[in-house]
Amino acid sequence: MNFGIIRYVLGMVVDLEGILLLFPCLVALIYHEKEGYSFFLVAVVCLILGTISIIKKPKHKEFYSKEGFVIVALSWVVLSIFGALPMFLCGDIEKYIDALFETVSGFTTTGASISENVELFSNSTNFWRCFTHWIGGMGVLVFILAITPLNSGYNMHIMRAESPGPSVSKIVPKVKDTAKILYKIYFTMTVLQFFCLIIAGMPVYDSICTAVGTAGTGGFGIKADSMASYNAAIQVIVTIFMILFGVNFNVYYILLKTKEKKLAFKIEEVKVYFLIIFLAIALITINVCNNVKNITYTIRHTAFQVGSIITTTGFATKDFNTWPQLSRAILVLIMFIGACAGSTGGGMKVSRILILIKSAKTELNYFMHPRCVKTIKMDKKVVEKDQVRDVHAFFVTYVLIFIVSLLIISLDNFDAVTNFTSVAATFNNIGPGLNVVGPTGNFAQFSVLSKIVLMLDMLAGRLEIYPMLLLFMPKAWRRN
Amino acid sequence: MNFGIIRYVLGMVVDLEGILLLFPCLVALIYHEKEGYSFFLVAVVCLILGTISIIKKPKHKEFYSKEGFVIVALSWVVLSIFGALPMFLCGDIEKYIDALFETVSGFTTTGASISENVELFSNSTNFWRCFTHWIGGMGVLVFILAITPLNSGYNMHIMRAESPGPSVSKIVPKVKDTAKILYKIYFTMTVLQFFCLIIAGMPVYDSICTAVGTAGTGGFGIKADSMASYNAAIQVIVTIFMILFGVNFNVYYILLKTKEKKLAFKIEEVKVYFLIIFLAIALITINVCNNVKNITYTIRHTAFQVGSIITTTGFATKDFNTWPQLSRAILVLIMFIGACAGSTGGGMKVSRILILIKSAKTELNYFMHPRCVKTIKMDKKVVEKDQVRDVHAFFVTYVLIFIVSLLIISLDNFDAVTNFTSVAATFNNIGPGLNVVGPTGNFAQFSVLSKIVLMLDMLAGRLEIYPMLLLFMPKAWRRN
Repeated sequence: MNFGIIRYVLGMVVDLEGILLLFPCLVALIYHEKEGYSFFLVAVVCLILGTISIIKKPKHKEFYSKEGFVIVALSWVVLSIFGALPMFLCGDIEKYIDALFETVSGFTTTGASISENVELFSNSTNFWRCFTHWIGGMGVLVFILAITPLNSGYNMHIMRAESPGPSVSKIVPKVKDTAKILYKIYFTMTVLQFFCLIIAGMPVYDSICTAVGTAGTGGFGIKADSMASYNAAIQVIVTIFMILFGVNFNVYYILLKTKEKKLAFKIEEVKVYFLIIFLAIALITINVCNNVKNITYTIRHTAFQVGSIITTTGFATKDFNTWPQLSRAILVLIMFIGACAGSTGGGMKVSRILILIKSAKTELNYFMHPRCVKTIKMDKKVVEKDQVRDVHAFFVTYVLIFIVSLLIISLDNFDAVTNFTSVAATFNNIGPGLNVVGPTGNFAQFSVLSKIVLMLDMLAGRLEIYPMLLLFMPKAWRRN
Repeated sequence: MNFGIIRYVLGMVVDLEGILLLFPCLVALIYHEKEGYSFFLVAVVCLILGTISIIKKPKHKEFYSKEGFVIVALSWVVLSIFGALPMFLCGDIEKYIDALFETVSGFTTTGASISENVELFSNSTNFWRCFTHWIGGMGVLVFILAITPLNSGYNMHIMRAESPGPSVSKIVPKVKDTAKILYKIYFTMTVLQFFCLIIAGMPVYDSICTAVGTAGTGGFGIKADSMASYNAAIQVIVTIFMILFGVNFNVYYILLKTKEKKLAFKIEEVKVYFLIIFLAIALITINVCNNVKNITYTIRHTAFQVGSIITTTGFATKDFNTWPQLSRAILVLIMFIGACAGSTGGGMKVSRILILIKSAKTELNYFMHPRCVKTIKMDKKVVEKDQVRDVHAFFVTYVLIFIVSLLIISLDNFDAVTNFTSVAATFNNIGPGLNVVGPTGNFAQFSVLSKIVLMLDMLAGRLEIYPMLLLFMPKAWRRN
């Protein structure tokens, strides 16, 4: 383990957080909120600590996947620990554990809240909550890769550990350039949504918070009823952008920068992603709609909820807790599927589900034709056996972590649906679940132990399990 | 597809069912029940139809895994269709669909009932219900293999399709002899339990029904409260035998017939099976027991419920519906784990879970040491890559079928826990679930569609998915 490089990168992360914390200070200045002092204080502390850590350059610059994983996992933990401080210090959130829960939920783009009424928070806190979604959405280290001259060849290890999906395809040969392109697309789309929201009549502050929250597929609302009280145009715009941010960003790169734009519409994962969204909306609309007159109204709200859940955003315009069982079951199912790989969304990712289903189908075929070849294709290319095995191992690890989490939080003795969907909603980085943690509920009532477990689930979900798991393995900490 | 051999084997199965149906006739004679006529009528019909089907020998005797799977799946469907008739004709069960549900539940050793009070059934019907467990436990075709001169070399395809577990290890080189040995052990242990129950003070009729139900890890009770009203000694005996019937039968073969008896205690799957049982009992006891004075009482009932659920038997002495959430969650978890491969129990099987966990662990190791070899060992032998892939594909298919079933039965709009555990309890061949289908509930309230889905789940669960899936694939039905 190369400890020098870990210290160095963590220093940069804390420095970066110091700079990012100046944005809520700006909000506080505009609204004359005294909460700004807490944000400023923590920003200064971060900048000092970060700068001390990077004065001394690491002796060895080489690092491998193990270090990449540990760096990413630790960065996210450290980011959350500092990020929670101002909300606690300014008094908006009473207990530090709750502030930490809220921050982890923010950075991991989960959007699960411990607050009963977010409208009681100061504007600076609410801005920071939403802004953490934007920071976490594309990844902090991806950002650092894009802007700093960190040594080239090994960056892939960091990129791979922080980016969602079974495999990271570098858009362009250099990791640094890929990171820059991703952030450009991300920033442009966020700004685009901001202007759409303004045009639809949303106040500026609300538009900023909503745009950054949607971009990161986060889901913290700044209203107690999430998105229910905004007008239909705003809800439709948010629906569209949620779904767009759940698409593999390769699509946008192909559309913007390459000549063969047709290829963008041929990516299997993206096609299946839209198919699932269409099917889910159709089935739930049939299940929920009891009056043909309401059909457009129902479709609008169904599309919002489906888009919100499958992209793991977590905004709500309706309390889907009250929907019939089939609709609830479909929502829980798409919680697990999640968005496309290479998007800002969470969940297991459509491409993984595709690989799993294809491998199962191949096996069934094998029983009929024992001499057939057992290969799987995606986008007309053969998926390497190693990758198929990776996906299977991921699936098993995913289920195991899910089970252990579920057993631990069962100790709080909430009903089984609350427990199941709490883990599903945090592990898949969605936010709201069902029953106690439904769109109108929150996570405040859980015990400290459960909150810690759910925080670890959020981090494990965002970082796709392995980086977080390595943190807990003594083997990983041995010196090279 | 070799249709001749399918007709021939199905004929033998129906013939065998005709003979087996004479046993409840005997019960009816003893108790002077008019319900016996229905059983006798169906027995005669079976014998006639079966005999007609086997008059003409099949032209080609060769068949392969595809035919093996289809033969097994069809046999179980046909067995259930005929087996349901007498209970419907004699009037004990009002609707044929319910009689069919009860029979499928019986043969698949599930034990999920549609009856609100089984004590209203005639003794012949109750005996037949329990007897179907015994028939289904070890497998009908395994029995036919043991007693008929069916052509040798290809029998493995049938044996493999009907026996539970990721791989069938032939105990002795000849399939026929393996089948004989398995049935001998099965019969002997059943008789042993019968005598133990008699000594503990259970009436003869109850002892027979309970012994055959336990042996098949079935779970139909003949009392409305399942096993709750019997004395403690009886409950302990049933606990022990449930757990014993969930052990891989290889253990008994090694203990009885080989010289190296130590090997029996070194089988990894069996050790893990007992470890899980121990942990589950310990955790639930701690979770449930609120008074140290009650500790032995609690352990006794916890052990009964844990043994009943992990072996997928489904008897109950307590309404675990009322237990705290952690205990309920543990019970649901062990529903999925199930018993050992090569036992009469259902579920995913301990050995599959072991292979899944080991493969996930190997993958995690790989992140730390990319140059390590990715092999998995069980009982100190390397598990072939093909087998690991089979287990993974099984797991995925299992989850997919589970999800589809859950979505369909959600249409009935019962609560989510009822839906989830209904599928879990039928697919894993357990019987009772939670809430509406808890130990004091039943499956009568489901719609016909849901009942059909749950029946297919029971069959798919008992036959380990693939044989049932093949039935629905047009490709499988093509002539060779």
